[in-house]
Amino acid sequence: MDDNPASRRNIKLVIAYNGAAYHGWQRQAEGIDTVQLRVEAAASRIVGHPVSVSGSGRTDAGVHAAGQVASFRTTNLAIPLRGLRRAMNSRLPRDIAIRSAEVVADDFHASRSAVRKTYRYRVYVAPMRSVELCSQVWHYWRSLNAERMRAGAVRLVGEHDFRGLATSAEVRENTVRTIYRCEVAQADSEIVVSVTGNGFLYNMVRNIVGTLVEIGRGRWEPERIDRILASCDRCDAGPTAPPDGLSLMSVEY
Amino acid sequence: MDDNPASRRNIKLVIAYNGAAYHGWQRQAEGIDTVQLRVEAAASRIVGHPVSVSGSGRTDAGVHAAGQVASFRTTNLAIPLRGLRRAMNSRLPRDIAIRSAEVVADDFHASRSAVRKTYRYRVYVAPMRSVELCSQVWHYWRSLNAERMRAGAVRLVGEHDFRGLATSAEVRENTVRTIYRCEVAQADSEIVVSVTGNGFLYNMVRNIVGTLVEIGRGRWEPERIDRILASCDRCDAGPTAPPDGLSLMSVEY
Repeated sequence: MDDNPASRRNIKLVIAYNGAAYHGWQRQAEGIDTVQLRVEAAASRIVGHPVSVSGSGRTDAGVHAAGQVASFRTTNLAIPLRGLRRAMNSRLPRDIAIRSAEVVADDFHASRSAVRKTYRYRVYVAPMRSVELCSQVWHYWRSLNAERMRAGAVRLVGEHDFRGLATSAEVRENTVRTIYRCEVAQADSEIVVSVTGNGFLYNMVRNIVGTLVEIGRGRWEPERIDRILASCDRCDAGPTAPPDGLSLMSVEY
Repeated sequence: MDDNPASRRNIKLVIAYNGAAYHGWQRQAEGIDTVQLRVEAAASRIVGHPVSVSGSGRTDAGVHAAGQVASFRTTNLAIPLRGLRRAMNSRLPRDIAIRSAEVVADDFHASRSAVRKTYRYRVYVAPMRSVELCSQVWHYWRSLNAERMRAGAVRLVGEHDFRGLATSAEVRENTVRTIYRCEVAQADSEIVVSVTGNGFLYNMVRNIVGTLVEIGRGRWEPERIDRILASCDRCDAGPTAPPDGLSLMSVEY
């Protein structure tokens, strides 16, 4: 790629996808279908040269997005942006959609420039599973007390060391993150957990949900959250909730 | 199977499924995944002998059900019905669910005994496709006038020769059916068509929806329905709507 920023464009995409059919966002070995692979293939064909699409972060197999953000550089200055979005959508499978495409500053980087992310997790609480929602929710057959979950959720807000809520395989120097908002809403048969933070450790949202569900079903008191944040011990937290209920809703810059 | 009805039970199942991952209801050649195949495999393992599960009718690849009905005979009288439903659900993939299981008279036949069926069709009307709903709706990007569609729908109610709304491959002696109800509802970005009738020809609901959509977008007047019912000519009707929006809601006996 040309080193002169004037001869290229940096394009920011907002992407929605249903992750049910994909092995996550991240490009993997040959023959493994991922969202990044599909987006790169569509973009490359349109701009006429191979592109590398860089996302705000990985999402695991089965995890969805309403507002994943990714960017790529192109030396093709001829394609209008409106045309780009449409052309990409017509070349993508119907479970992936480009919501917007815009030119951004050359130094924009979808991952490093992100300052805030919001995730949503849907728990479907009913004795019988829903075949319609099966890939979009965690089906939980025991009853859950949303009020107790809420009392646990508010204890997560603030700057904390979230090591106890990260999957242990994760080795990072800095496990301190800030949660700005952690809300629990109940509607019909669903309990929806929404979390906004400046960053998330691996499996952190799924571990938060797994822990709040243990609180909601009465195994633990909401104060359990304080213990997990103090001990930083993964063994104090609940199980990792399944990927299906999780969706990356938005990334702010 | 024993010829004596006292030594066997006829079991009626109500089944919900998300058809997105299946090649329809009907068992096909080896290696082709269908809903019937999955239900038979689960039932056979539980009762301990091979069973043949007979459905109220076929649903095509990609078509869903909230209330498909099927029945099978078993000589195993030991398994309690409550246990049967639960055991089947634990042996079925999560996009298929047994809603109920009950013992019915020996002469009950899911297809021949049916007197009424209800289908629902979801059209998602929006400029951008929904990745969340993509396998559950027909995404239609032009705007549709539900009032016009409703005016067309009511003209279908009654006893008519529906040959013009059956896919032409169908060769049947009697193409007369009675539609008891054909309603068009609008909510948020969706237009939902619900049809109840004493029976349906091949692709009939999808052809009805394809025709109502042509009326809704203004290509035809609602009176077009009268012409199709009079001419019995498939060429007078609209295109076959895609399978994804269709769901078999209930079968009455």
